[in-house]
Formats: sequence, structure tokens, C-alpha cells
Amino acid sequence: MNFLAEIDVMPLKEILDPQGKAVTGSMKNLGLTEISNVRIGKHITLEVDAPDEEAARQKVDEACKKLLANLIMESYDFEIKAI
Amino acid sequence: MNFLAEIDVMPLKEILDPQGKAVTGSMKNLGLTEISNVRIGKHITLEVDAPDEEAARQKVDEACKKLLANLIMESYDFEIKAI
Repeated sequence: MNFLAEIDVMPLKEILDPQGKAVTGSMKNLGLTEISNVRIGKHITLEVDAPDEEAARQKVDEACKKLLANLIMESYDFEIKAI
Repeated sequence: MNFLAEIDVMPLKEILDPQGKAVTGSMKNLGLTEISNVRIGKHITLEVDAPDEEAARQKVDEACKKLLANLIMESYDFEIKAI
């Protein structure tokens, strides 16, 4: 079975996000003064071939831990659906 | 009222995603051969101060169009919730 995973990798709350800070500043310059606290991470989609959803979930978790997220600075979460 | 927006900005399907291609290759090298078709975009969270959800939605849409997404190469979608 094929599954589609949608993964979000975000900088940890305790860690300064300079890219987000810069974009928050740009929002003000564009007149979007109502927008604050921008934080920027990664959105990753991928396909997994696995016998069932639990197996797919484990593969995606392994991929996040080994490659997609740096757990010292980032957290991740994901959703999986059959396709 | 304050709203939290969760925005995904992804490279358009028609456009080659070299970062995703490289990560797909790395998955194979790590033994995660079941994973394919990795695509990498941005996940952005931000807060909006607006009188109601419809107004917040308009502000976020404006922010995406003006600053967060490059509509020639990327598409975006977002969800909003009151916080």
C-alpha cells in the first residue's frame, strides 16, 4: 500500500528563529501590522510503500529522526493517509 | 481577537524540486528504500490580530501573496484557528 505523509519540521520554541524575525519585520513594512510572531520551518511531503499504516508511520518517524529533522533545534510532527 | 495561522508553501508540482530529489536519494542511502517522491517546502506559523476569522483569513492571504509565497513557483494553503 502507498501512503502519503505530510511532515512539519519547526524550530523549537526556545530557539530564536532569525528568518521568522526578519519576515515579521517585513510584514510591518508592508503595512501588515496585525501579523506577529512569524516562525518558519519546513513542510515535507513524501510517499511510503508499507503493508499498513502503522508500518508507514514507523518508516516516516525513522526518516524524520535520521534525516529530516535536527532534534537538537527542531521538532516534527506528521500525518499519514493512504493514497 | 487573536488567530493562529498555519501556512504551507510548496513548490508547484510541475516544477523540479532539487532539494526534495536530493533527500529522496539520501533516503535510499540510509536504507529507507520504501520512501519516494520527497518534496520540500515551507511551513509557516504566525499570529494575526483581527476582528473575526474572515478578516484574519484575508490578512493571511495578503501576506502569502505579498511576501510568503512566490506564486510563479509555489502554491500555498493555510488553516486558521482562534487562540
